Amino acid sequence: MNSTLKSWVDVPEGSDFPIQNLPFGVFQKEGQAPRLASAIGDYVIDLVVLAEHGFFEDLKIDNAVFEQRYLNDFMALGKTKTAAVRQRLVDILDTDLDNWDASELKDFFLVPMSEAEMLLPIKIGDYTDFYSSIEHATNIGKLFRDPENALLPNWRHLPVGYHGRASSIVVSGTPVIRPKGQQIPGDSKEPVYGPSRLLDFELEMGFIVGKSSELGQTISTAEAEEYIFGMMLFNDWSARDIQKWEYVPLGPFLGKSFASTISPWIVTMEALEPFRVQGPVQEPAVLPYLEYEGKKNYDINLQVEIVPENGQSQVVCRSNFKYMYWNMCQQLAHHTINGCNFNVGDVCASGTISGKEPGSYGSMLEITWRGTKPVDMPDGSQRKFINDGDTVVMTGYCEKDGVRIGFGQSSGKVFPAI
Amino acid sequence: MNSTLKSWVDVPEGSDFPIQNLPFGVFQKEGQAPRLASAIGDYVIDLVVLAEHGFFEDLKIDNAVFEQRYLNDFMALGKTKTAAVRQRLVDILDTDLDNWDASELKDFFLVPMSEAEMLLPIKIGDYTDFYSSIEHATNIGKLFRDPENALLPNWRHLPVGYHGRASSIVVSGTPVIRPKGQQIPGDSKEPVYGPSRLLDFELEMGFIVGKSSELGQTISTAEAEEYIFGMMLFNDWSARDIQKWEYVPLGPFLGKSFASTISPWIVTMEALEPFRVQGPVQEPAVLPYLEYEGKKNYDINLQVEIVPENGQSQVVCRSNFKYMYWNMCQQLAHHTINGCNFNVGDVCASGTISGKEPGSYGSMLEITWRGTKPVDMPDGSQRKFINDGDTVVMTGYCEKDGVRIGFGQSSGKVFPAI
Repeated sequence: MNSTLKSWVDVPEGSDFPIQNLPFGVFQKEGQAPRLASAIGDYVIDLVVLAEHGFFEDLKIDNAVFEQRYLNDFMALGKTKTAAVRQRLVDILDTDLDNWDASELKDFFLVPMSEAEMLLPIKIGDYTDFYSSIEHATNIGKLFRDPENALLPNWRHLPVGYHGRASSIVVSGTPVIRPKGQQIPGDSKEPVYGPSRLLDFELEMGFIVGKSSELGQTISTAEAEEYIFGMMLFNDWSARDIQKWEYVPLGPFLGKSFASTISPWIVTMEALEPFRVQGPVQEPAVLPYLEYEGKKNYDINLQVEIVPENGQSQVVCRSNFKYMYWNMCQQLAHHTINGCNFNVGDVCASGTISGKEPGSYGSMLEITWRGTKPVDMPDGSQRKFINDGDTVVMTGYCEKDGVRIGFGQSSGKVFPAI
Repeated sequence: MNSTLKSWVDVPEGSDFPIQNLPFGVFQKEGQAPRLASAIGDYVIDLVVLAEHGFFEDLKIDNAVFEQRYLNDFMALGKTKTAAVRQRLVDILDTDLDNWDASELKDFFLVPMSEAEMLLPIKIGDYTDFYSSIEHATNIGKLFRDPENALLPNWRHLPVGYHGRASSIVVSGTPVIRPKGQQIPGDSKEPVYGPSRLLDFELEMGFIVGKSSELGQTISTAEAEEYIFGMMLFNDWSARDIQKWEYVPLGPFLGKSFASTISPWIVTMEALEPFRVQGPVQEPAVLPYLEYEGKKNYDINLQVEIVPENGQSQVVCRSNFKYMYWNMCQQLAHHTINGCNFNVGDVCASGTISGKEPGSYGSMLEITWRGTKPVDMPDGSQRKFINDGDTVVMTGYCEKDGVRIGFGQSSGKVFPAI
């Protein structure tokens, strides 16, 4: 990362989007079809305008790829081309305008964020949710099983995961309707039907697969990074009461599939490169196909706040992606060890990212320890879970040498059940 | 169903595809792009040829919809239009040629099945697998849990299901590569890595959603049939050893996601209409949102045979779809009760379809009662599970008044692990 790099576009202090970030997304301006974008400071960068003016011509990319509803075709160009587009954006936006000067076009390709609606950036094929934070898995084991044997026997041997619902993954800002379903009230053995009373968030991060693999093919931990295009914030909304009754023996289903909220900007692995850190020691040693070399974790600060309707917000969690026990390369290697294939646009999420301290737990279930330690809100009210009218806002950023690479936010307001 | 209806195209006795069936699929002839098709007797019906000659012109359907790689856009036209196309095929193919005579074109639009490669007919979005046979769930409970309390408490209250992997659903004829993964040998507590030794099939049927629903919307049992376009055979291949080690607490994952094999022809609900039967009594009574009226089960004879390489085949299962405890309308109503949305092309599978007798069990796990009662093959060998070189062939048909509506087959040959 070149931390001295500056742009001629004004980037406010604390912005998520300096010239070192340049994430990708899809936006829409009123009266215009959706198109691909990047971001700098408080502006969306309209990639179609730059393409039409020949700024990517020598990269031999069909301009039509920028006029798409989703990023999928762009990602499918491969990392060589997508990284070249990102580097070209640096050339255009940095203060050295010798070669690539687009400053005269700025009113055309820089769109104030307030005028741009960010859309779901990916046409998601399959979505897998992992369970890769040892602190989270331990907390859940303590809460619902045996505190002395909180982790199940398989947990340290493989990154446990399950298939999730792709159709209900929505972009930040989309209303979240409280789900209805079957629950067991108190000690009853008969289910009742009604709105979930235990609506929770789960603080997660997701990665997007930008390269497809064939059925029967395995992807090694060393190859995995070729397949990972970028990352986003991921709120895996969970209805704990629905989940508890339905999930044996085949896993979570309707307790999750009503909504998951992602942030609109996909931060590339190139932008995250400077923030690699060593992962935790894995004991016992993993099987050879899960071994890896180098730094595969990332130091990404994460925060969750609850914003009540017309009220003051309360931060309820400060965590970090670096806590993950299983890294993304191990997740992908494990996912394909049986020959399962990946398509461009498939998504994997991390599972709830909890740290060691209660202040770093990534779900209300853990933060309030199953409702026994409610969170105090500034207005004097308390929260065991999420109320109607509450907005859950997740943010995340990396920081080093004065450069902050941010993820924007995943924000979802909860509306009453229909 | 008009059982006296006859076609001027020769339909051999016992064919799955009389004029009363007319399923939909996608085929490819050498040197030609994929296109939509129906079937009669031993012929594929090329819908593009018929469209180009104006046979669907008055139905106001863009001919381009027949020149697609998948059925999705065709299904999205809605049941009124797709049923009209099917009725037009009846008019073209029946012996009464007064209005719609395509007999002079027969060499162009009737393609011998031997010259047509059938492709995966659906671009599948999300795939859900249910667990809706009470005999199967009871068998699994007896084998792995408590024989006295084989069914889990939630089973009779809701159609248990889980999200499956869509990317690895393949069409009949696609090789199935034995998956590798972690297993626990014998009484060991440490996993080993290697090819699955307990490869199994699961006899299921799938239905395809042909109409989308919105996030937050629920679909009632009465509305559900509007959303179900048609059905196919579904082999939910399962690696029992991988599944057993991985599946707690989040459900089946790599033990399933290496392959699922579907039959290429989607039999419409219109063709299956005459075969409706009453479902089993549900005790205790279900919650109101799962109540339904009328006959929602279907009498579909199902069969599984194992065909060894260069050997004689052995039928290992004869079952029937009518045994299902939870019907498709209940599955869809339950799946959307939390507001989960559906897209055109989403697939739901039934779960293993077992009957009451051992000869009707829908998986080797049950047929051989966990390997304790191996199946005798004609060549003197035995099978506890599926060997390399074996082909598993599933077939299915309805029959009434001398008319047989068949599903073709789901066939998959197992190849050694890579």
